[in-house]
Amino acid sequence: MTGRLIHSLATTEPLAQLFSDESVLAAMLEFEVALARAEARAGVIPQAAADAIATSTKTENFDTTALANATLRAGTPAIPLVKTLTESVRKNNPDAARFVHWGATSQDVADTGMSLLLKRAQPILLGDLQRLEQALRHLSEQHAKTVMLGRTLMQPAPPVTLGLKAAGWLGSIHRAHCALADAFSNATILQFGGASGTLASLGSQGISVANELARQLGLGNPEAPWHTHRDRWAAMICACGVLTGSLGKMARDISLLMQNEVAESSEPGGDGRGGSSTMPHKRNPIACSLTLAASHRVPALVASCLSAMVQEHERGVGGWQAEWPIMADTIRATGLAIASMAEVAEGLSVDAERMRSNIEKTNGVIFAERAMMLLGSKLGRDVAHRVLEQATKKCAAENRHLRDVLAEISEVTAHFDTTTLEQLEIPEQYLGAAEDFRKALLSASASSTQNFKEEQ
Amino acid sequence: MTGRLIHSLATTEPLAQLFSDESVLAAMLEFEVALARAEARAGVIPQAAADAIATSTKTENFDTTALANATLRAGTPAIPLVKTLTESVRKNNPDAARFVHWGATSQDVADTGMSLLLKRAQPILLGDLQRLEQALRHLSEQHAKTVMLGRTLMQPAPPVTLGLKAAGWLGSIHRAHCALADAFSNATILQFGGASGTLASLGSQGISVANELARQLGLGNPEAPWHTHRDRWAAMICACGVLTGSLGKMARDISLLMQNEVAESSEPGGDGRGGSSTMPHKRNPIACSLTLAASHRVPALVASCLSAMVQEHERGVGGWQAEWPIMADTIRATGLAIASMAEVAEGLSVDAERMRSNIEKTNGVIFAERAMMLLGSKLGRDVAHRVLEQATKKCAAENRHLRDVLAEISEVTAHFDTTTLEQLEIPEQYLGAAEDFRKALLSASASSTQNFKEEQ
Amino acid sequence: MTGRLIHSLATTEPLAQLFSDESVLAAMLEFEVALARAEARAGVIPQAAADAIATSTKTENFDTTALANATLRAGTPAIPLVKTLTESVRKNNPDAARFVHWGATSQDVADTGMSLLLKRAQPILLGDLQRLEQALRHLSEQHAKTVMLGRTLMQPAPPVTLGLKAAGWLGSIHRAHCALADAFSNATILQFGGASGTLASLGSQGISVANELARQLGLGNPEAPWHTHRDRWAAMICACGVLTGSLGKMARDISLLMQNEVAESSEPGGDGRGGSSTMPHKRNPIACSLTLAASHRVPALVASCLSAMVQEHERGVGGWQAEWPIMADTIRATGLAIASMAEVAEGLSVDAERMRSNIEKTNGVIFAERAMMLLGSKLGRDVAHRVLEQATKKCAAENRHLRDVLAEISEVTAHFDTTTLEQLEIPEQYLGAAEDFRKALLSASASSTQNFKEEQ
Amino acid sequence: MTGRLIHSLATTEPLAQLFSDESVLAAMLEFEVALARAEARAGVIPQAAADAIATSTKTENFDTTALANATLRAGTPAIPLVKTLTESVRKNNPDAARFVHWGATSQDVADTGMSLLLKRAQPILLGDLQRLEQALRHLSEQHAKTVMLGRTLMQPAPPVTLGLKAAGWLGSIHRAHCALADAFSNATILQFGGASGTLASLGSQGISVANELARQLGLGNPEAPWHTHRDRWAAMICACGVLTGSLGKMARDISLLMQNEVAESSEPGGDGRGGSSTMPHKRNPIACSLTLAASHRVPALVASCLSAMVQEHERGVGGWQAEWPIMADTIRATGLAIASMAEVAEGLSVDAERMRSNIEKTNGVIFAERAMMLLGSKLGRDVAHRVLEQATKKCAAENRHLRDVLAEISEVTAHFDTTTLEQLEIPEQYLGAAEDFRKALLSASASSTQNFKEEQ
Repeated sequence: MTGRLIHSLATTEPLAQLFSDESVLAAMLEFEVALARAEARAGVIPQAAADAIATSTKTENFDTTALANATLRAGTPAIPLVKTLTESVRKNNPDAARFVHWGATSQDVADTGMSLLLKRAQPILLGDLQRLEQALRHLSEQHAKTVMLGRTLMQPAPPVTLGLKAAGWLGSIHRAHCALADAFSNATILQFGGASGTLASLGSQGISVANELARQLGLGNPEAPWHTHRDRWAAMICACGVLTGSLGKMARDISLLMQNEVAESSEPGGDGRGGSSTMPHKRNPIACSLTLAASHRVPALVASCLSAMVQEHERGVGGWQAEWPIMADTIRATGLAIASMAEVAEGLSVDAERMRSNIEKTNGVIFAERAMMLLGSKLGRDVAHRVLEQATKKCAAENRHLRDVLAEISEVTAHFDTTTLEQLEIPEQYLGAAEDFRKALLSASASSTQNFKEEQ
Repeated sequence: MTGRLIHSLATTEPLAQLFSDESVLAAMLEFEVALARAEARAGVIPQAAADAIATSTKTENFDTTALANATLRAGTPAIPLVKTLTESVRKNNPDAARFVHWGATSQDVADTGMSLLLKRAQPILLGDLQRLEQALRHLSEQHAKTVMLGRTLMQPAPPVTLGLKAAGWLGSIHRAHCALADAFSNATILQFGGASGTLASLGSQGISVANELARQLGLGNPEAPWHTHRDRWAAMICACGVLTGSLGKMARDISLLMQNEVAESSEPGGDGRGGSSTMPHKRNPIACSLTLAASHRVPALVASCLSAMVQEHERGVGGWQAEWPIMADTIRATGLAIASMAEVAEGLSVDAERMRSNIEKTNGVIFAERAMMLLGSKLGRDVAHRVLEQATKKCAAENRHLRDVLAEISEVTAHFDTTTLEQLEIPEQYLGAAEDFRKALLSASASSTQNFKEEQ
Repeated sequence: MTGRLIHSLATTEPLAQLFSDESVLAAMLEFEVALARAEARAGVIPQAAADAIATSTKTENFDTTALANATLRAGTPAIPLVKTLTESVRKNNPDAARFVHWGATSQDVADTGMSLLLKRAQPILLGDLQRLEQALRHLSEQHAKTVMLGRTLMQPAPPVTLGLKAAGWLGSIHRAHCALADAFSNATILQFGGASGTLASLGSQGISVANELARQLGLGNPEAPWHTHRDRWAAMICACGVLTGSLGKMARDISLLMQNEVAESSEPGGDGRGGSSTMPHKRNPIACSLTLAASHRVPALVASCLSAMVQEHERGVGGWQAEWPIMADTIRATGLAIASMAEVAEGLSVDAERMRSNIEKTNGVIFAERAMMLLGSKLGRDVAHRVLEQATKKCAAENRHLRDVLAEISEVTAHFDTTTLEQLEIPEQYLGAAEDFRKALLSASASSTQNFKEEQ
Repeated sequence: MTGRLIHSLATTEPLAQLFSDESVLAAMLEFEVALARAEARAGVIPQAAADAIATSTKTENFDTTALANATLRAGTPAIPLVKTLTESVRKNNPDAARFVHWGATSQDVADTGMSLLLKRAQPILLGDLQRLEQALRHLSEQHAKTVMLGRTLMQPAPPVTLGLKAAGWLGSIHRAHCALADAFSNATILQFGGASGTLASLGSQGISVANELARQLGLGNPEAPWHTHRDRWAAMICACGVLTGSLGKMARDISLLMQNEVAESSEPGGDGRGGSSTMPHKRNPIACSLTLAASHRVPALVASCLSAMVQEHERGVGGWQAEWPIMADTIRATGLAIASMAEVAEGLSVDAERMRSNIEKTNGVIFAERAMMLLGSKLGRDVAHRVLEQATKKCAAENRHLRDVLAEISEVTAHFDTTTLEQLEIPEQYLGAAEDFRKALLSASASSTQNFKEEQ
C-alpha cells in the first residue's frame, strides 16, 4: 500500500478511502458509464454500446498500480483508463468498444471524476461541521457565566467568559462553514468539453449530451467547459484554507489552556487518544496538534492551488497536472481538522474553578484598567495614573492584591468606600458586553445554519 | 522615501498612495475622532473633549518615521499614535487629553484603520474590474466568429473562437469579481472591543457607542469584536488570490499569443509601455508580465494570511503583527493586475488573418479527430484509425494537408466525395457549441453584474 | 490501495514504493532492532532481548491500515507500532517484551525512520541528477555552434546558441545538485533523545548507545537530539525547492520550444508518452508538464515545512505532526521532476534548421542593436537611432530584411560597404562571449561534480 | 512617504533605509558609473564619457516617484533610469550621453543594483547574528545547571536545563547563520550579459569589462550571466527562511515561558517596549511577536521566490518582475527577527526559582518514567507499570507527590529504601546527557563560527 501510513496524521479513514485508488477509479468509470448512457439517449451512440460499457467497469479488473504508472507516462489518467476500459468492453461487445469515451477528452473524465469525489467529501466535511457547531453552541450556553482570564499577547487581561470564547470560535467556524458549503455547490460540476472545449465532435448534440450527463451524475452543469478556468475549485480550496485557519485558532487556544500551569480545560482522552502509559492522568493535545498540523499545511496547499491557476490556452502545461494531490490533500487535511475539533468540542472538559483561581492569581492587576476608570473620574487621570502605577508595582513586589494595596492609599480611600474596593476584582462585574456579544454570535450562527439546512 | 521604488512593479500609484504613511495615519486618526464623537454623543466623554480631539489630528503634526520606529518598539502603531495625539490634544485642551482613545484597545484603532483603507481600495479595484469586464465583453462580441487554434498542452488542437476565449476569461474574472465584492462587504467592518473584547470599560454603553462609531465611519458593525477571528479578512485575501489567478491565466494566454512566431494578438503599447528604442515595432508583454508577477506573489501572500489566522486567545502573538504588510501587498498586487489587464483588454490588438493562417499551417491535422468521426462511421473505428495514423504521418513527413492526403486513399474516396474532404478543414464547420458556450458565459457574467450594481 | 492513483502525476514508482506503508514500517522497525542491538552491546538490555526483537519484525505481521488509524488516535506512529511490536516480541520471548523501545521516545523512532527513508531517497535523486547533468553536458557540447533566437520577455532578441542555453540549465541544476547533496548529508541523521531529549532514562550510557545506534543505521550522529530543531530537514526541503525551480525553468523553456509555431525542439516520445492516437506525429510536453507541476507544488511544500519549524519546547504541537507528508511529497515531486528532465535531456530532439529559420523570420530586426553599434560610431548615436527606427518600421511594414532596408539608405551606404551589410544578420557573428560563457559553465559544473563524486 | 508605516512591524530602521528609494536608486547608479569606468578602462568608451557619467548621478536630481511610475510603464526600472541619467549626462557632456548604459541590458542594472543592496544587508544581518549567538552562548553557560521542566506537546516532561535549551536554540541558529553567510557570498554577484546574455554588443571585450566591473563593485563574478537562472538568490531567500524558522522557535518558547501562569523567563522591557500604562509590571512579548510575525511571512516569501524561478528563455515574463519586493521583504523581515531575538537573548530575565517550583508543582509525576525504570528492574515491567499507573492516578486525585504515594506501597518499599524514593524527584539526578549535549552544541557552534570569521 502506498502512502496511507506516511499520511496517517493527515487524514481520517473515510477521507483516506474517498481518495483511495478504488474510489478514484470508480469515479472516473462512473463518468464513462454516464457519458455512454447520455449519448445513447441522445442517439449519438447505440444503446447496446452504452449497456456494454456499463457492464465492463468492475474496478477489480483494473490494475491500479499499472494504471498509475501508465498515467505517469501519458500525463493523464484518462488515456490508460480508457484503453483498459476499451479492452474490457471489447471482450463483452466488440462493436461497443469504439464508443468508449466518445467525444470526450482526457480532462473531462479526470475533472469530472474529481468533482464526483468532492461531492462525496461534501457531506463528510459538512456533517462534522454541524456536529462541531452544535457542540460549540452547547458549550457556549453552558458556560455563559463561566468567567476566565482574557489573555492578550498571552498575558493576563480583563476577564471574559468561556461562553464568549466558545461563541467566538463558533462564529468564525460558522462563517467558514457557510462559505465552504457555497464553494462545494459551485465546485461540484461537470467537466465536458471535448478536445478544445467546444464539444465539436458531437456536432449539434453537445449541449444536450452535457445536460443529460450532468443530470445523471448529479453534478451542476456550468455555462461552458472550464478546462483552464479553475477558479471554482480554487475558491473551494480557499474556503478550506479559511476554515482550517479558524479551526487552528481554536486548537491553539485549547492547547494553551491544557498546559499544566494553566489547566483550565482539556480535550477528551480515551480510545487510544494521546495517553501515556506511565502518566495515565496525562492528556496530550492530540486532536489539537492534528488540527494545528493541518493549519500548517493547508495554507501552502491553497497557495499551490492558486499558483496552478495560471493555465495555458485550452489545456495547461503543469498547472492542471499539479491539482489532484493538492485537492485531495486539502480535503483530507481540512476534514481531519474538522473531525478533530468536533471531537474536542463534544468532549471538552472544563475546570471552572481553576479558571477563577487563575484570575485570582493575577492579584487583581487585570482590574487596573477598571480602577483607573473609577479613580480617574475622581482624581483626574494624571493622578489616578500615578497612583495605579505605584499600586500595581507594589502588588507585584509584595504579591498582594490590588484592592488591598489601594485600600492603604489615602487618596483612594478618600473617594471610595470599602465595598467599592472589595468589588473591584469581581470578574462578573467587569464583563461589559460579553453576554450581548455571545448571544449575537450564537444568533448569527444559528440563523444562517437554518437557511443553510433549508437549502440542502 | 521608503519602498516606493522597490515595489514599483508591484503597485499602481493610487494604491501606493492608499497605503502611504499619510493615508494610514489619517485612517487611524479618523477612528480616534469618530470614537470621541460617538462617546460624546453617548455621554461617555464631554462633547468639548470630542471637539478638541477632532481638531488635533492634522497629519502634518505627526512624524511618521518616528511613529514607525516607535511602533516597532511598542509592537503596535496605536500606542505611539495615541501618545502623540494625546500631546497634541493637550495643547488644545488639557482636560480633553485624558479622553483620547477612551475605552479602546490598540488593536481597535489599527484594525479599524485598515478596514477604512480597504473601504477605499474597494472602488479602485472594483472600478477597474468593471472596465476590464466591459472590454472583454466587447472583445468577445466583436470576435464571436474569429477562428483561432485551440491549443492543449500548448500544442495545436481543433479550433476555437477568440470570442469564446475572451468569454472564458470574462467568466472566471466575473465570478472572482462577485466573490471579491462580497468579501469586501464582509471585511470592511468596525473593530471595537477594548482590552479583552468585552468593552468592559464602557460599562453598559459599549454597544451603543459601537453602533454609533460604525455609523460614523461608514463601516459594517459585526456581532462582536473579532480581535483574533480573522476569517473575514482572510476570505477577502483569498478572493484576491482567486482573482489574480484568473487574471494570470489571461495574461499567460496573451503573452503566448504575442510571441513573434505566433503573433496573433498583442497588448497595447504606447505611453512608455514596453518599447525598445532600437526595435520600435516591438511590443513587450509588459502588462502581462506585471500581472503574472502578481500571480507569483499573491498565492504566497494568501498562504501567509491563512497561516497567521492561528491567533492566541484574545490577542495574537505574531499572527496579528504579520497582517498589515500582507493585506497591503495583496491589495496592491491585485489592483495592479486588474488595472494591467483592463488596459490590455481595452487595447488588445488582434490579427485575425494570422489566427487563420496559424490554423492553416497545421496542415489540417487538427481535424484528424473530425476525420476519424466521419470515417469511423463508415469504415469502423479500427480501420479508420489505421488510415488516419498513416495519413497524418504522411502530412508531417511531406508537409501536406490532411484533406489532400486523404483524397489519395481509396478507402476514403470510396465513401466521401470531394466536397466533404474539401470542407474537412474549414474551421467554422468544426466549432461545435463554441458560440452557445460563449453566449452562456456572457449571459452569466452580465446578469450577475447587474445584480451586483443594484446591490451597491 | 490509498493515494497511489491520486498522486500518479506526482511521483515515480521507486519513490512511491519508498514511501509505501511497507517501506515506512520497515524503516521504523529497523530503528527498533538497531536500538535493541546497540543497547545490548552497551549492556543496557540483555542480548537475548535484542535477538528476540530482531526476529519479531516481519512487516507482514503488521496491519498497516490499523496502524495508520491507531496512529491518528495516538498522534504518533510510534505508540501503536511499539505496542504491536511488543506483542509480537512477547510471543517469541515474554521477557524480551519489556525491552522494546527501551529509553526511546515516539519521536525518536518516527524521525529516525524518516532519516532512513531519506537516505534511501538520496541515491535515487542524485543518480538521476548525474544522468541529467551528463545529458545536458553532452547536449551543450553537441550544440555549441547551433544558433537560435535569444528570447527576452518571449520576444525575439539577439541570437544565442543552444549550447549556451543547455549550459545555463546545467549550471543552475548543478549548483542545486551540490546543495542537495550537502543537505542530504546533514539531514540523514539519527534522532535519539528519549522523553525530553536528554536520554535521562539511559543514565550515563545514553551517548554510547546513541553512537552505536547511529553506526548501525549508517546515519550521521548529531551533537544532540533535535526534536524541535528542524533546520536540517528544512534545509533539505529548501534544496529540493531550488532544484525544482531550476528544473521548472528548463521545462518551461522546452515546452515553449515545442510549440507548433516554434518547433525548434521536442522532448522524446515513445513508451506511452504523450502520444495521441489520431495525431501520431504529435508529441505533447508530458515530462515538461510533470516537472512544471512539481514546480507549482514544491514551493508551497517548502513554505509549509518552514512554517512548521516553529515547534514548542521539547516536542511540537502541530509543527512536528505536519512534517511526514510534507517531506514525502517534496521528495517524490522533486524526484519526479529530476527523472522527467533526465529523460528529456537524454532524448531531446533538436531541429537546428528550424532554429536558424526562426532567426531568419525576424527579418533581421534582432540585429538592430548590432546595426546601432556600427552606425552609431559613424553617424553619432542620435542620427543612427533615427535611421534605425525608420528602418525597422519599414522592415515590419514591408516584411523585408533589415540589411536590405538599410542598403537603400544613403546615410548608411555612405559608410558601409555591401559586405558589412550582408554580414549584419549572420548570427554566428553576433554571439559575443556565448562560447566563453558556455565553457565556463561546463567547467564549473564538471569540477565540482568530481569533488562531489570523490566525497561519496 | 510610502509604506514605511504599513511595514512598521516588518522592518528595522536600517533595513528600511537600505531599501529606501534613495538607496535603491543609488545602487543602480553605482552600477552605471562602474560600468562606464570599466568600459573606459577597456577602451570601449572614452574616459571623458565615463567621467561625465560619474559626475551626473546625484540622487537628488531624480524624482523617485516619477521614476517609480515610469518603471511601472516600462516594466523595468532601468529604462526610465537610463533615460533620466542620459539627460543628466547630456547637460554635462553631450557627447558622453550616448555612452550611458553602453552594452548593458535593463536586467543588468536592476539585478546588480539588488546585489549591491544585498551586500550591504549582509553585515547588518550577520552582525546581529553574532550578537545573538554570543548572548545565547553566555546564557547557556550561565544556566548550565538551571533545571526546568521539559515540555512535550506543551505538557510536563522530565527536566532539562535552561543551558541545554539555550544551546539548542544556538545550535540551530548557528547552522542557519553559516548557511546564510555562504548564501550571501554566492548571491552578491554581478549581473552583466547585455540583451541576450552574450555581451554581443561588446564584441571581444565583454569578459574583460565584466571582470573589471565586478572588481569595481566588489561583487563576485559568476561564470556567466544568470538572467533567468535565479537559484543563487533563491538559495539566499531559503537560507533566510530556515533561519527565521529557527528564530521563530526560540520566540515561541520564550513567549510561552512568559505566560503569567508559567513566568519562568521574560524578554527585556524598557525603551518603549511593550509596556502598559496601567500595568507597569507587565511585559508583553513584543520582540517575540515580531519574530513570530516574520516566521508567518517569510515561508510564503520563500515560496513565491521559488515559484518565480520558472523564467522563460533569456528574460522572464512575470517571474523576474516579482522578485524585488520578495527579496526586500524577506531581508527586512529576517533582519528584524534576528535583531529582535538578539535583543531578547541579551536581556532575557530568568526566574530559576520559578523554574524549579514549576517542576515541583507537577507532584513528581514527570519522574514516573524514572520510577518505572527503577521499579521495572525489580518487579518486572508489567507489575511496575500497574503500580505506577495507580500511583500517578493517586497523585493527581489527591494532589500529592509521587515519592510520597510510592512510599506507601508495600511492593515498592520492599525494594527501595527511603533515600532512593526521596531522591526520585531531584531534577539534577535525572538529566541524563543534558550537559554533554549542551557542551557539544556550544562546541559545534563555536568552532564553525571561528572558521566563518576567518573566511570573512
